[in-house]
Amino acid sequence: MNQETKKIFEKYKNLVEQKLDEYIPVKYPEKIWESMRYSVLAGGKRLRPVMTLETCRVLCGSYEQAVPAACAIEMLHSQSLIHDDLPCMDNDDYRRGKLTNHKVFGESTAVLAGDALLSFAPQVILQQTPSTVPSEVLLKVLEEFVVAAGAEKLISGQVVDIDSEGKQISEDTLNFIHENKTGALFKLSMRTGALLAGAENEKLQAVTDYAQKIGLAFQIMDDILDVTSTLEELGKTPGKDAQENKVTYVSFYGMEASKKRVSSLCQEACDILEKHGIKSDILKAIAQSINERVN
Amino acid sequence: MNQETKKIFEKYKNLVEQKLDEYIPVKYPEKIWESMRYSVLAGGKRLRPVMTLETCRVLCGSYEQAVPAACAIEMLHSQSLIHDDLPCMDNDDYRRGKLTNHKVFGESTAVLAGDALLSFAPQVILQQTPSTVPSEVLLKVLEEFVVAAGAEKLISGQVVDIDSEGKQISEDTLNFIHENKTGALFKLSMRTGALLAGAENEKLQAVTDYAQKIGLAFQIMDDILDVTSTLEELGKTPGKDAQENKVTYVSFYGMEASKKRVSSLCQEACDILEKHGIKSDILKAIAQSINERVN
Repeated sequence: MNQETKKIFEKYKNLVEQKLDEYIPVKYPEKIWESMRYSVLAGGKRLRPVMTLETCRVLCGSYEQAVPAACAIEMLHSQSLIHDDLPCMDNDDYRRGKLTNHKVFGESTAVLAGDALLSFAPQVILQQTPSTVPSEVLLKVLEEFVVAAGAEKLISGQVVDIDSEGKQISEDTLNFIHENKTGALFKLSMRTGALLAGAENEKLQAVTDYAQKIGLAFQIMDDILDVTSTLEELGKTPGKDAQENKVTYVSFYGMEASKKRVSSLCQEACDILEKHGIKSDILKAIAQSINERVN
Repeated sequence: MNQETKKIFEKYKNLVEQKLDEYIPVKYPEKIWESMRYSVLAGGKRLRPVMTLETCRVLCGSYEQAVPAACAIEMLHSQSLIHDDLPCMDNDDYRRGKLTNHKVFGESTAVLAGDALLSFAPQVILQQTPSTVPSEVLLKVLEEFVVAAGAEKLISGQVVDIDSEGKQISEDTLNFIHENKTGALFKLSMRTGALLAGAENEKLQAVTDYAQKIGLAFQIMDDILDVTSTLEELGKTPGKDAQENKVTYVSFYGMEASKKRVSSLCQEACDILEKHGIKSDILKAIAQSINERVN
């Protein structure tokens, strides 16, 4: 990412941080709000909300109307991490270099904080989106949000992932997990930005295809980093896939082929934008950064 | 409940059962959908969705437009029970005379089935509500739904409830728990029906006040039944409150005063309807049935 692009990315990221902090209050009972804030404000790349904001901007010239929905998507992402880390799921102690939610607040609060975020995210969309956004658009944004969060997308990926531990799974199953566990949220991020921009169908489809490519690239990179990274670099425990005997892109195709696949997916993603006249340095840089990510 | 009222109640209840069955499909991965169906279709009184349908009917003459939202509220109710029963929460083995969700499907699936229902419920409202309902009304229904489900209502009640175990809590705290853990969903049920009926503010307030009264009555009766009932009658393990040293209405005011309070709350609820010209045998009968409930 060059300096100029980096500056814009940081501007979006800071806006998201500030708004997340603003949207989630601390009220009685403080424990649940603090638990929600702990995970949502624990840093992270904020890739998804930045994608939402930039997609909205590039397609209509403004991004203000997408700020609440962008933050809601980040809340959903946090929610999925809180529940994924639970002892009955992946049983992780660290996330983004900090203790996981249930390690700090206890298991019952972590379950409830996740639940609370699942409802608070659409609440933020409903209550904070500017009234200039037409009701029909808002309803469509909400519908795509709850579908992505639910058993047809995000959760189905998680279910099949858990069920696949220690099993020799097919390429189709591996793809299903990644399509839904990671891909669905990337698609939601881009589509939400496009919908709030009032984009026509061709552009909506183009950003969906871009999201499909980089979502897959992101997940393959996750599998690569689980092998090559340290706890310090990664912010979470590495080597878990091998330890759990998990089938990953790396175990399936090997390290070199996986790296090549990431490279070509990121290039294909940029080509899609180019082809449809979507001129965004940020979205290009995001695709490239996935190829270069270390955490 | 007289025979005629009972017949109407059963008609509503059967419609809710049928629609819940219809709305929740079984698709890949089957385990998550079956887990959702297991708890949602496990019977129960269906009090809340019936309240939604009848409130809508009595205020505008039809209830068809409220069927999806009524079912969504029942899904939310099921969700809260699945997560309440988890080992890290109340750790219950039985619910409605059947093994709890995590006992049948395992803990991780039970967490995810609850998560899935939290998103599926608003999805049903969004996708199944007839298009004759104005977008503004639908947005308001959705907003009240996610607020009731979240950390401002349902979850705050659950958090304070868990935190209060084995502690000597104040009357205010006890009221806070019940207001939010039980009351919020009763209010949501009635208000959703009224909103979908296009009710004016006075009627909306009246049904809210009714819900407030019977919500509290329902919860006090819960506390009474936990002392007086058997597993067979109750469908869940009785005596848990005393075992966990929990402050309840009964331990606070004594058995007799609690019974009297239920009686007068149910009467007050009926008086509110009367005063505002809301002529519903079903809503009256529901108030009375709470006074007479055995499970």
